Amino acid sequence: MRPFDDTPLSRDGKVLILAYDHGLEHGPVDFEDVPETMDPETVWDVATHDAVTGFAVQKGVAEAYADQYDDVNLLLKLNGTSNLWMGEPDSAVNCSVDYAAELGASSVGFTLYGGSNNEIEMAEEFRDAQETAREHDLPVVMWSYPRGQGLKNDTSPGTIAYAARQALELGADVAKVKYPGSKEAMEHAVEAAGPTKVVMSGGSKTSDEDFLTTVSDAIDAGAVGLAVGRNVFQRENPREMLDALEAVIFEEASVEDALDYL
Amino acid sequence: MRPFDDTPLSRDGKVLILAYDHGLEHGPVDFEDVPETMDPETVWDVATHDAVTGFAVQKGVAEAYADQYDDVNLLLKLNGTSNLWMGEPDSAVNCSVDYAAELGASSVGFTLYGGSNNEIEMAEEFRDAQETAREHDLPVVMWSYPRGQGLKNDTSPGTIAYAARQALELGADVAKVKYPGSKEAMEHAVEAAGPTKVVMSGGSKTSDEDFLTTVSDAIDAGAVGLAVGRNVFQRENPREMLDALEAVIFEEASVEDALDYL
Amino acid sequence: MRPFDDTPLSRDGKVLILAYDHGLEHGPVDFEDVPETMDPETVWDVATHDAVTGFAVQKGVAEAYADQYDDVNLLLKLNGTSNLWMGEPDSAVNCSVDYAAELGASSVGFTLYGGSNNEIEMAEEFRDAQETAREHDLPVVMWSYPRGQGLKNDTSPGTIAYAARQALELGADVAKVKYPGSKEAMEHAVEAAGPTKVVMSGGSKTSDEDFLTTVSDAIDAGAVGLAVGRNVFQRENPREMLDALEAVIFEEASVEDALDYL
Amino acid sequence: MRPFDDTPLSRDGKVLILAYDHGLEHGPVDFEDVPETMDPETVWDVATHDAVTGFAVQKGVAEAYADQYDDVNLLLKLNGTSNLWMGEPDSAVNCSVDYAAELGASSVGFTLYGGSNNEIEMAEEFRDAQETAREHDLPVVMWSYPRGQGLKNDTSPGTIAYAARQALELGADVAKVKYPGSKEAMEHAVEAAGPTKVVMSGGSKTSDEDFLTTVSDAIDAGAVGLAVGRNVFQRENPREMLDALEAVIFEEASVEDALDYL
Amino acid sequence: MRPFDDTPLSRDGKVLILAYDHGLEHGPVDFEDVPETMDPETVWDVATHDAVTGFAVQKGVAEAYADQYDDVNLLLKLNGTSNLWMGEPDSAVNCSVDYAAELGASSVGFTLYGGSNNEIEMAEEFRDAQETAREHDLPVVMWSYPRGQGLKNDTSPGTIAYAARQALELGADVAKVKYPGSKEAMEHAVEAAGPTKVVMSGGSKTSDEDFLTTVSDAIDAGAVGLAVGRNVFQRENPREMLDALEAVIFEEASVEDALDYL
Repeated sequence: MRPFDDTPLSRDGKVLILAYDHGLEHGPVDFEDVPETMDPETVWDVATHDAVTGFAVQKGVAEAYADQYDDVNLLLKLNGTSNLWMGEPDSAVNCSVDYAAELGASSVGFTLYGGSNNEIEMAEEFRDAQETAREHDLPVVMWSYPRGQGLKNDTSPGTIAYAARQALELGADVAKVKYPGSKEAMEHAVEAAGPTKVVMSGGSKTSDEDFLTTVSDAIDAGAVGLAVGRNVFQRENPREMLDALEAVIFEEASVEDALDYL
Repeated sequence: MRPFDDTPLSRDGKVLILAYDHGLEHGPVDFEDVPETMDPETVWDVATHDAVTGFAVQKGVAEAYADQYDDVNLLLKLNGTSNLWMGEPDSAVNCSVDYAAELGASSVGFTLYGGSNNEIEMAEEFRDAQETAREHDLPVVMWSYPRGQGLKNDTSPGTIAYAARQALELGADVAKVKYPGSKEAMEHAVEAAGPTKVVMSGGSKTSDEDFLTTVSDAIDAGAVGLAVGRNVFQRENPREMLDALEAVIFEEASVEDALDYL
Repeated sequence: MRPFDDTPLSRDGKVLILAYDHGLEHGPVDFEDVPETMDPETVWDVATHDAVTGFAVQKGVAEAYADQYDDVNLLLKLNGTSNLWMGEPDSAVNCSVDYAAELGASSVGFTLYGGSNNEIEMAEEFRDAQETAREHDLPVVMWSYPRGQGLKNDTSPGTIAYAARQALELGADVAKVKYPGSKEAMEHAVEAAGPTKVVMSGGSKTSDEDFLTTVSDAIDAGAVGLAVGRNVFQRENPREMLDALEAVIFEEASVEDALDYL
Repeated sequence: MRPFDDTPLSRDGKVLILAYDHGLEHGPVDFEDVPETMDPETVWDVATHDAVTGFAVQKGVAEAYADQYDDVNLLLKLNGTSNLWMGEPDSAVNCSVDYAAELGASSVGFTLYGGSNNEIEMAEEFRDAQETAREHDLPVVMWSYPRGQGLKNDTSPGTIAYAARQALELGADVAKVKYPGSKEAMEHAVEAAGPTKVVMSGGSKTSDEDFLTTVSDAIDAGAVGLAVGRNVFQRENPREMLDALEAVIFEEASVEDALDYL
Repeated sequence: MRPFDDTPLSRDGKVLILAYDHGLEHGPVDFEDVPETMDPETVWDVATHDAVTGFAVQKGVAEAYADQYDDVNLLLKLNGTSNLWMGEPDSAVNCSVDYAAELGASSVGFTLYGGSNNEIEMAEEFRDAQETAREHDLPVVMWSYPRGQGLKNDTSPGTIAYAARQALELGADVAKVKYPGSKEAMEHAVEAAGPTKVVMSGGSKTSDEDFLTTVSDAIDAGAVGLAVGRNVFQRENPREMLDALEAVIFEEASVEDALDYL
């Protein structure tokens, strides 16, 4: 009943999610450094890279392009909210699972802000989405991001492990969690998630080598892959970075070898 | 799946929305300057002008006249609220999409107050409306108006670009946004909206020339048209202003030439 | 789609609503002056008068008697609340439209407190009721009563005109509004309502002549009739007052002639 | 449409409700005086008495015993709440009407706290329950208990009359109200309820004679019966008290004669 | 209509629930003492022990393993929440009953926090779950845990008896309550629950003998069994402790004899 292995989200059991919902979550300001990335087409083109097993976008961006990009593995992000609103963390369900399936999604994504005053409501929305996704055999990725109220350091090892576990308990197939700062902490989160796969979100922004090293460490720690956004699509050479990530994630290349792609 | 080009809302890809929901949003006081415009028939007559690709009214005004005006392109505004109520921005869903379709609407409109404490709820209501509109092949226009809480200057370039982007991300076919003050800022908003069309709302109230210049600038900036209310129907010569706007929007006339109609 | 003319609520386009929901809205204390009016049967008998085109009662009062009074034109008041509760104006939906139809209602009524913190919710409940009423071809009367928050003088001309307009915009067939104090103000409200009919609610309690004069003025101002309660059923001679009102409303009699009935 | 006369709740138009939901509303502490009454079977046995036209219990107590007590007239109490919770009066809907019918209920009960901040919501829940009960031809008893906010003396004659009227207006077949202190006040409440039957709830706890006198007064005042709990099932001789009540309520016996049963 | 005896949850009328939802309720920190118990497989293996009549897990943990463990009696815990969130006690409904049935559950569990500000809402969610469970003939276990607001000592005899009674009144087949401190108090709770079975939750953490003595006392007091978590699966010898509990619960062994298993 837990779809993953035979779906496009998995390539030999590994995952690389290219996230492109910044326009909703942060607004156009996120595209300022590389203005052409504001045009979804630019990033859809990047998403055609074989390494991308899930291209995470909101409904509107999917509707407008999915037909033209049959070779892109669409991960429909079901909820999301602007940062114009600044209350206790919450997220609107912007797309039904049935409609995501109609748009050709091969997986769906859902944010849960554990610890928020809205956690109960979000968990119940997740339930509906997850159970409907099961009917469509769509794997479910949980953006498991503890946030709100008393949660100050939301990347502490304990919090990230809890986030990973919550994804398992509630029925996500994949948990997308922040990098908890060390390989050991990532191992702990991976163990906490048990049969739910873990992908690391974000990572170091310093040098290419540091970034790839973090990804490699996460894979070594048992994560099945990475969810990445601006670190890929806002580079001058996004496809080359995807080549490098492909090497690290799918081909167990060393960081040294992977750096050759850049 | 994104209906627009083959619908009455588009005339060669351009749009002119005549909005007439002031009676609900502001009350009869809005008609004081030109009292006969309080009579919906007066404005329905104006809306028969070929330039009007969407006549935006609330359910009640549609129900009473739509049968007699087969040649008017009805844009059913689905939500809206009186200003008797003065809380955090919100809007009641006054018409179901199914009923809008039954009334003969060829497009629907929906207000989203991004940044309001009610943004989450409004976005979820929008989801339902948008997905049902898809079943009827009705294009969806979002009145994308950031408002509420900490939002003070809601026509700043950054806010308007964000508003335009939100319309794209959430699945609107057309974003109706305030004019952000300059052609450059409008270009930015149009780029932010990507495949979602942008129409400018309102505009300068000074002279005819200034108004048409703003419209012309918006078109030059990539907007597909204009949403206008009192600037048209409260003039002595509304049809002539529509002639002028038709020239600027659909025929790429210069402002100078367009002024000849007035 | 807007039912009115061919329904029992209209007699030659005019309307006389006899309202009898005081037991819910104000409690038995309202019947103290004429104790026998606490017995619904007494008032149902009055409601058999030919002048009454809509007898407005709550579900329970309809259920108990409607079968025995086939000749009474039943207006089922769908919402209403006790005054035991003293919060921001709101009203419970006590009867579904489907059930109202089953009870034999020939029209339905719905209160909207424009300006209340509950306006949004009430408007959305109205939407559901109105659209279901359309399926049954039942005309909808809106008790359009701005109330709550900052609304202090709720019978000012501007407020009453807004109330009348809201009824039109939201899709009511008839707007029941308070008398705004003068014939001119009533004319303004009638104009604001456009194709939605207006009935005056209440009126002077002083003398018979003053009362009938107000009604006559309202009719002159374009109102299609009156909604009246205690001014009729708590008189010693309710049928004679209905004769007089019938003369003023349906037969365009002068106040002087109408007074002959009393 | 108002079922009563031909249902088990009515015996020659009279009613005796034995209420046994104290375990939920007050907790086991209510059974302390007569510990064996904590065992539902003890009270189900009492409820087999011919005088009991409605045995009011919550879903769980009905589920466990109804099959074994075909001769008990089951009144399923649809809502109710523990007193562990101490907020503004409210009551959870613990049983659907459809399920009550499946359990063999011959009538249903519903509490309304008029005057509570939750009155609106409770009234709307009542609407759903009442309309569904109509489909099953189940009479509806309203526990009409004004309570909350500014309501201090909730057994004043005016409040009880209002409570009785609310039951009529909202569509209850039977109103269960507190005894308002005098026969005259009870008469007023009965008149206020019109065609809705009134049963007195509780009553004097002093002597048997005083209790039966109050019941007799209520009947004289027009009430159709009594709802009683601990005054019956917590006596050493509950069946004898039911004999006495049967005499007073159904056989118009004098209090003096009824006392012979005790 | 009350399923229990013929279901896997009951073994000769007795119950032993192994609870393993700590990953959601408390997070991975709960597994620190015995790290391998973080791996659900370890605990599923333990749950194959014949003594376990209900293995209580959340949806996600059930989905991932249930297929491989046909011999485990699955008790799907329908609601639950992380402790990242620290408001008034509440619990998200994470799994529908229909889906629980699809996953092969032979019973379902539901937490009710009596006394919480969310009691009303939780009770109504329980209603829906319980009535749907009836359609599937699944016994319902209520985690009846008074908590919130003014409830300070939530294991007092009075509170536990009330908790047990609430489970009966609302329609649970089994009430899971905290041990109220003494055999007498447990007897009282068992009596309060009437036909609803009672299982003791938790118990002394001191020595094996003390723990087994408490369990034995609870059984003597009329409880049908135990719900246990860490006291079993976090031991070095969980199966041996289950052997001992099996002896005490199902075979009426003395504590002395049961200790031989350890």
